[in-house]
Amino acid sequence: MTRTRFHQGLADLKQKLLVMGGMAEQAVERAVSAFASRDVAICQLVLRDEPQINATEREVDELALDLLAMQQPMAVDLRFIFACIKINADLERVGDQAVNIAERVMDMATYPKSGLNVDIPRMASLATNMVRDALNAFLTADPDLAHSVLERDDLVDDMNREIFEAADFAMKHAVETHRDALDTMIVARNLERVADHATNIAEDVIFWVRGADVRHHAQG
Amino acid sequence: MTRTRFHQGLADLKQKLLVMGGMAEQAVERAVSAFASRDVAICQLVLRDEPQINATEREVDELALDLLAMQQPMAVDLRFIFACIKINADLERVGDQAVNIAERVMDMATYPKSGLNVDIPRMASLATNMVRDALNAFLTADPDLAHSVLERDDLVDDMNREIFEAADFAMKHAVETHRDALDTMIVARNLERVADHATNIAEDVIFWVRGADVRHHAQG
Repeated sequence: MTRTRFHQGLADLKQKLLVMGGMAEQAVERAVSAFASRDVAICQLVLRDEPQINATEREVDELALDLLAMQQPMAVDLRFIFACIKINADLERVGDQAVNIAERVMDMATYPKSGLNVDIPRMASLATNMVRDALNAFLTADPDLAHSVLERDDLVDDMNREIFEAADFAMKHAVETHRDALDTMIVARNLERVADHATNIAEDVIFWVRGADVRHHAQG
Repeated sequence: MTRTRFHQGLADLKQKLLVMGGMAEQAVERAVSAFASRDVAICQLVLRDEPQINATEREVDELALDLLAMQQPMAVDLRFIFACIKINADLERVGDQAVNIAERVMDMATYPKSGLNVDIPRMASLATNMVRDALNAFLTADPDLAHSVLERDDLVDDMNREIFEAADFAMKHAVETHRDALDTMIVARNLERVADHATNIAEDVIFWVRGADVRHHAQG
């Protein structure tokens, strides 16, 4: 294997990982638009496309394994491939969260609306921006952008706690729309997990770029 | 680096991953025993020990990276190291689920008990046995044991659905113990995620042992 072919392989790996990121992000955006309109057809799109995300995850893993087998990578390339393997697993789970949200929306479509006053679209936008920025931080090897992702996680956690308490209150005080409030609470929790995955990715980027492991220390 | 030293490194990696598995499993068992007794002191133990799990995760990753850098691994060793990296990430998240359960139990301790008739300890036992068997399948390179883990996931999913509906019913019909039922529902969901991580590990074992990727197809 030539060094050139190895570097082409690294570029392919990065490209495929970005495709994976785009698919995961689109799945969350679709699930959240389905939430806003209680649109079951959009939910079914999310469920339909999940196997494609899983297939792409496998392709990324195979590319990474091929590169590791190709020649003895230098430390910097090794850490890059390692980061791809980790990030890939997180992106697949972002796709899983989109499926969880879609399933909740399909449940909600069969129950009366609670009219709960919580801003799921804003929370979703924060969470998906974190995923996008974490991937951009990877693409551009930008640890500052990765750190900004870590900092935003608290905001999403706070929104999740607020929505949890608002939904909890609503469930107790309006029993007839109880299920809708419960499902909304679960959707918020799923979005909080999307942000967690973005945080994991940002930590992997920092580990890769700096060669220093900030995982589990970032928020001190 | 000698081949012998490389193989010693592989043995160390496996050993460290088993330590990681033991810690994650213990965390879940403690959190569930805290649930049974609403014992906040046990919850605090789980929270106290989480940084140790995270530190061990980093040690496993560093060992894996060192091995990959040491010499060009043969395909079989490469797939073994790859499996360790993946399994490690799942075990860390099993530990996260234990923390989530502990936090719910601390919440529950401040609310009246619902007396909801659901078998969380049995569900926990199923889920932690799946984690233990998935790791044993890895230790003994036993794809049949890994397949048996995959088969058990449906059972845990079914229990989660049953508990979800039972808690949902209880929340609507006994508003004064609403919060306890809600927290119980979330604990069940966390255990269902423990079983998901065991499933991921089992898939990684099968991928490693057979060199064939059954991920996302196992339950066809």
